[in-house]
Amino acid sequence: MSFAQLYIGAGNGFSSLTTRNHSPYSWMFCKAITGVVLAISGYVVLTQLWYAAYPEEIAATLPEDVNWGARQPESLKDDGIRPFTITTSPAVIEHLKFRLNHTKFPHAPLKGVSFEYGFNIDYLKKVRSYWLNSYDWSARLKFLNSLPHFKTIVSGLDIHFIHAKPAASAKNLKVIPILLIHGWPGSIREFYELIPQLITPRKNVDYVFEVVAHPAGFGYSEAAAYSGLATAQIGVIFKKLMNKLGYEKFYVSGGNWGFKIGRDMAIAYPENVLGFHSTMCMDMHLAPVPVVWTAVHVWIGSFIPGFAVAKEDEHRLYPLRDYANWLWTETGYLHLQATKPDTIGTALLDSPIGLAAYLMDKFSSLTNPANRKLPDGGLTKKFTLDALLDNVMIYWTTDSILTAVRLYSEYLSNDYIKLKFDAAPVKVPTACARFPHELVYSPDFRVNRKFKNLVRISKYNDGGLYAAFEEPKIVANDIWTSIPLFLKARQNASSGSS
Amino acid sequence: MSFAQLYIGAGNGFSSLTTRNHSPYSWMFCKAITGVVLAISGYVVLTQLWYAAYPEEIAATLPEDVNWGARQPESLKDDGIRPFTITTSPAVIEHLKFRLNHTKFPHAPLKGVSFEYGFNIDYLKKVRSYWLNSYDWSARLKFLNSLPHFKTIVSGLDIHFIHAKPAASAKNLKVIPILLIHGWPGSIREFYELIPQLITPRKNVDYVFEVVAHPAGFGYSEAAAYSGLATAQIGVIFKKLMNKLGYEKFYVSGGNWGFKIGRDMAIAYPENVLGFHSTMCMDMHLAPVPVVWTAVHVWIGSFIPGFAVAKEDEHRLYPLRDYANWLWTETGYLHLQATKPDTIGTALLDSPIGLAAYLMDKFSSLTNPANRKLPDGGLTKKFTLDALLDNVMIYWTTDSILTAVRLYSEYLSNDYIKLKFDAAPVKVPTACARFPHELVYSPDFRVNRKFKNLVRISKYNDGGLYAAFEEPKIVANDIWTSIPLFLKARQNASSGSS
Repeated sequence: MSFAQLYIGAGNGFSSLTTRNHSPYSWMFCKAITGVVLAISGYVVLTQLWYAAYPEEIAATLPEDVNWGARQPESLKDDGIRPFTITTSPAVIEHLKFRLNHTKFPHAPLKGVSFEYGFNIDYLKKVRSYWLNSYDWSARLKFLNSLPHFKTIVSGLDIHFIHAKPAASAKNLKVIPILLIHGWPGSIREFYELIPQLITPRKNVDYVFEVVAHPAGFGYSEAAAYSGLATAQIGVIFKKLMNKLGYEKFYVSGGNWGFKIGRDMAIAYPENVLGFHSTMCMDMHLAPVPVVWTAVHVWIGSFIPGFAVAKEDEHRLYPLRDYANWLWTETGYLHLQATKPDTIGTALLDSPIGLAAYLMDKFSSLTNPANRKLPDGGLTKKFTLDALLDNVMIYWTTDSILTAVRLYSEYLSNDYIKLKFDAAPVKVPTACARFPHELVYSPDFRVNRKFKNLVRISKYNDGGLYAAFEEPKIVANDIWTSIPLFLKARQNASSGSS
Repeated sequence: MSFAQLYIGAGNGFSSLTTRNHSPYSWMFCKAITGVVLAISGYVVLTQLWYAAYPEEIAATLPEDVNWGARQPESLKDDGIRPFTITTSPAVIEHLKFRLNHTKFPHAPLKGVSFEYGFNIDYLKKVRSYWLNSYDWSARLKFLNSLPHFKTIVSGLDIHFIHAKPAASAKNLKVIPILLIHGWPGSIREFYELIPQLITPRKNVDYVFEVVAHPAGFGYSEAAAYSGLATAQIGVIFKKLMNKLGYEKFYVSGGNWGFKIGRDMAIAYPENVLGFHSTMCMDMHLAPVPVVWTAVHVWIGSFIPGFAVAKEDEHRLYPLRDYANWLWTETGYLHLQATKPDTIGTALLDSPIGLAAYLMDKFSSLTNPANRKLPDGGLTKKFTLDALLDNVMIYWTTDSILTAVRLYSEYLSNDYIKLKFDAAPVKVPTACARFPHELVYSPDFRVNRKFKNLVRISKYNDGGLYAAFEEPKIVANDIWTSIPLFLKARQNASSGSS
């Protein structure tokens, strides 16, 4: 039976089910529907065959003995793990207050505009006033130091981390090491509400977490002196850090850059990463087959959304014009940082109010696009000004904005793309917590293809790029729920291979 | 004769011209070539027909009585034309020096990196040192005030301009009024080398220029209080300004935003704009027909460059991957400014070194992409540090960076796109001076389609986005050469219509 016969036959069959005295229009309609269904089915079968024939991409193996720092190797003798306390000199705070007091505010927002042109100037004046008059840095320092900080040298760089151990009440429980990784423009501050929920035992659960939260090479960690430190290379440093702390095997969780770094660790170290939990699951494979495949799916989905996305995700992609507008509107910082990190970094290093506006802008629109229409950018719906300013202060007092934004340039470079971490599959057990206002949206069919051992996709009603900071309870619960699934997936795999 | 017969027949005809004993391969090759030629010809004929059937776009007519300023109309009584002198208070300069002396420079460039990550930090330290120790603002003020400045209220805004009259030696010559318009991140400073060449009589030429150089709503001109002041609306203000100065008819010249504003004036006021001269001719019409037409042309050109571009322009488009990389690398500022002008503006308002790096970055890479590889960004190949810092000082002392970058947001808005200035043809006589390092490249075939009365396309070997600043002699000569052609085109048009 030829394809044409099949087409006509299916049309006949369908029409005979409806009515014998069909009008010419219903007949044409019936044939059209049948044709579309067959075309789509054919397309799906063809792309599956195409994909099956497509060789699996293999990510590069990275050397582990690179010295990224400016110092000579002889000065890098192993100094062990040093406790660290966040401190700032009074001069830094005095200078900050002087600079804030002399901020230039020569303009008003355009009439009737909230955050549609970026950070609202009237609200920025309120932020400055709060920063100068109500924000208490010494109290905040106490808070930030309430978790135990450490430093140690890895790959020639002095790397900072928080190491939070389980509460004393957890004596007889199994302790599970988990590495939390944040992104930009966040900091370790994003995890301060999440960590206590992970290290406190839960009823009827026989384990508890020991958390290493790492600042992704930002903040109190030393910056690279050489170009090329992208997410995969940071992953090498983090894996070496975990090994140095005595964890041969561990879990990883992160969103934003934490997703990319964690994903690269999961690809590079499947024996070490027991499970990968992320609040930003996506597939960034941009080769022709997945791009065309996705484009056709998404295009068909613009007529039949269910073909491309689950019901609850329709608003993420459709109307496509809105999604394209959103991406254009919210990725200017990414574009500039990927191409001119030292230019924008120089400006932000030198202006505290500029830094605050630039960073807090992201905590407004990337938690909810509707925040653009609010006079305060919706900033205090999820956060306190104290929390947001803690984050700004971590960048300001460490002078780390310029070195942090270089990561965009390293990641979006041909050198990194050639390593194929975007292209290679993730085979370790993975759990995806998906939030509706995530910046970039990968439909589930692509997530399923990237993560070959997906133990769970959970979808939530609110939250965006900074899920752990916005919704610490939800993210904590998601992590707790994922561990047994990770264990089961590992058991299945080992019993399957035995 | 069917298309298939034509195809086979042409193949036969061509083969009989070559050899009777052709091999099967040469026969297939011959057929393939003939097929390609026929397909391309068919495409060209079809798109020409398609274009011919496509209705001409008509730009919106804009109201001329809009009040863009914050002040009440009653305070806006006509104050005539007021002479203006650039002055700054000592406090502003003291504050600047204090800020520069306290610049934070905590980092070095990455090892072996020049301007590839943006403005080089080592070179920025040299710029700061020059600014603090060698740059003499009082001498520069004298220089900036050496041309006659004025202000006047138009459309509710206090508008600044330079009005340079011909030298005394030009007594018996015909005086030609020309409006020069600059763009971002330039200022009136871009025209200081050009203007003297326009107001000085030339041998055997019976005319000389009277120049009105206008700062496009930047610098010393008041900023709008309401959203929506895009290029077409600025064009309304400039036309009213020229009328107020007594010029019913005049010429316009500009690159960068000066191109877009001048183009919109030429479209809106064909009776007033006698001729439009630009160093940045392009066609931004993004509707499906021109986009597909251009895409196919450019795609064919990637095999046969001559199909899409003239020989001397091949390097502008091909390899296409290089052009796409260049656009991505150099348009981050545009993307951010179009979407978050108030966020980036706030940071740059508050940091002189950040402002200098951000603005001068553009004068490095947008004059020549090869400058990225030079330790000084090639900045002093075309400019002096004095000239570049004059430009930075105009933004810094007027606090105008934030309001200036809002123009990107206004131009790249749906409201502006709906006005159809990007889509409508320019019918007034136009002269295009094309420079090889212009940021965005429109092939000649598109320029020819946008400008229906193109009197001249001249191509030069060096220069980029700031042609008038980089190559004032070439641009002056180009303007002098264009005037007789404009006059001739006008005469032909009027004799043709009479």
